[in-house]
Amino acid sequence: MWGGIINNFRIFSSDQDVCMGTGIFEAEKRRALERLHNEGADDDIAELIELLNGFDDYFTTSSCSGRVILICIPEIGAKEEAEFIAKWHREVSKNEVLKAMGMWKAPDGELWLMSQSPILHVSCVSMEKAKQLLNLAIESGFKYSGIKAITMKRVMVEIMSTERMDVPVGRDGVIFCSEPYLDFIISKANFMLERGKEKLRRFYYGLEELK
Amino acid sequence: MWGGIINNFRIFSSDQDVCMGTGIFEAEKRRALERLHNEGADDDIAELIELLNGFDDYFTTSSCSGRVILICIPEIGAKEEAEFIAKWHREVSKNEVLKAMGMWKAPDGELWLMSQSPILHVSCVSMEKAKQLLNLAIESGFKYSGIKAITMKRVMVEIMSTERMDVPVGRDGVIFCSEPYLDFIISKANFMLERGKEKLRRFYYGLEELK
Repeated sequence: MWGGIINNFRIFSSDQDVCMGTGIFEAEKRRALERLHNEGADDDIAELIELLNGFDDYFTTSSCSGRVILICIPEIGAKEEAEFIAKWHREVSKNEVLKAMGMWKAPDGELWLMSQSPILHVSCVSMEKAKQLLNLAIESGFKYSGIKAITMKRVMVEIMSTERMDVPVGRDGVIFCSEPYLDFIISKANFMLERGKEKLRRFYYGLEELK
Repeated sequence: MWGGIINNFRIFSSDQDVCMGTGIFEAEKRRALERLHNEGADDDIAELIELLNGFDDYFTTSSCSGRVILICIPEIGAKEEAEFIAKWHREVSKNEVLKAMGMWKAPDGELWLMSQSPILHVSCVSMEKAKQLLNLAIESGFKYSGIKAITMKRVMVEIMSTERMDVPVGRDGVIFCSEPYLDFIISKANFMLERGKEKLRRFYYGLEELK
C-alpha cells in the first residue's frame, strides 16, 4: 500500500496548498468516517479520533491505541505471514498470556511477545496543516511521527512513539522463557502501554486547545 | 533536534522545488562531506554513502549500517539517559556478549540487547528527488522510510527497515536470561543484521542504475 501511495507522490505548487480544492478531500473524509462508523476504534482512542475528525482539515484513516500482542512468525522472518495468537489493547496479566501461549500450535514457527506504540494515520488538507499536527504530536511525546505520503489529494501524517518491545519467547512449539522472565517482560509491556496512553491524553488536550 | 527542524517546516511553492536555488544546498553539502570525512562511517555502509554523495541532488547527514547493542536504561524508561555497554556493526558471538555483560555495573538499571536496522538520513535538493529516493529505498526493502522534515533548504528522507529486536536481559545488576535463550536471541540479532545488510546491497545496486 505504501508503495502505491508513494507512486502517486506529487510536488505541491503554491496554489495547491489546499489540495486540488477541498472537494476531493471532503469526499474522502466522508468515506473514511463511514468506514470508521462501521469498523469502530479502540475505546482508549475513540474520543481522540472523534476530536480529530471534528476538524475540517483532518481525518483519520487508521488508528490503534497501543497493544500487547502474542504473534507467531515463520522461521524465515517474513512478518507478512505472521499469525496473531492474541492481542490486548489494555494491561494484560501473566495468566492471560500463559493461556494464550497454550493456544499456540505451530511446529515450525517462532512465538514473540510484543508491545507496540499507539499509531495514528491522519490525512491533512494541506502541508501547513500537516506541519501543525506534527508539531503537536511531537510535543505530546510521539517522537517517531513523520510525513509518510504526499499526493495531490492529501498529506498523510503518521503519529507514533518510541516505546516498543519485541521479545522472542518460543520456537518450534517450545516456550523457552522462564516464568520470572515472563513476569518481567509483561510488566515492561504494560508499563509501555500505559506510557503510550498518557501520550494520547496529552495529545488530546493539545488538540482541544487548538480547536 | 527534530522539533527544531519541524519549526522551520515550510510549504513548497512551485518555483521553490529546487530549494532556494542550489547555492545553500551545495554549501550544506560541503559541510556535511567535511564532517563525514572527519568522523567516518561504518565499513558496511561507506561505499553506499560515497555513491549517494556522488549525486548532485543528495547528501547524507547521518548513517548506520545496522547494529547489535547492549544498553543500560534507567528503570524509569528514559531512553535519553541510556548508556551503551557495547555495540557491534557486525555479527556477534555469545562470548562477546557475555564478556560485555560482565562490564555492566548498574545497581538500579535495566540491561537490554537490541538489534537495530540500518538507518540513513539523506538531504534531497527537491521534493521530486526525495520521492525518487524514497521509491528506491522502499523497493529495496526499507519499508519504514519516510519524509522526516521539509524546510526551505532541503527535504530530509529517513531510510529504515522493519527488522528490530528489543529484549530486556537483566535488571538491577542481575542477568535473568538463560544461556540457551541468550544463544537464541543472539542468533536472531545476527540474522536481522544480515538481512539489513542485504537490503543495503540491493539499495546500492538500485542507486547505481539510477546514476
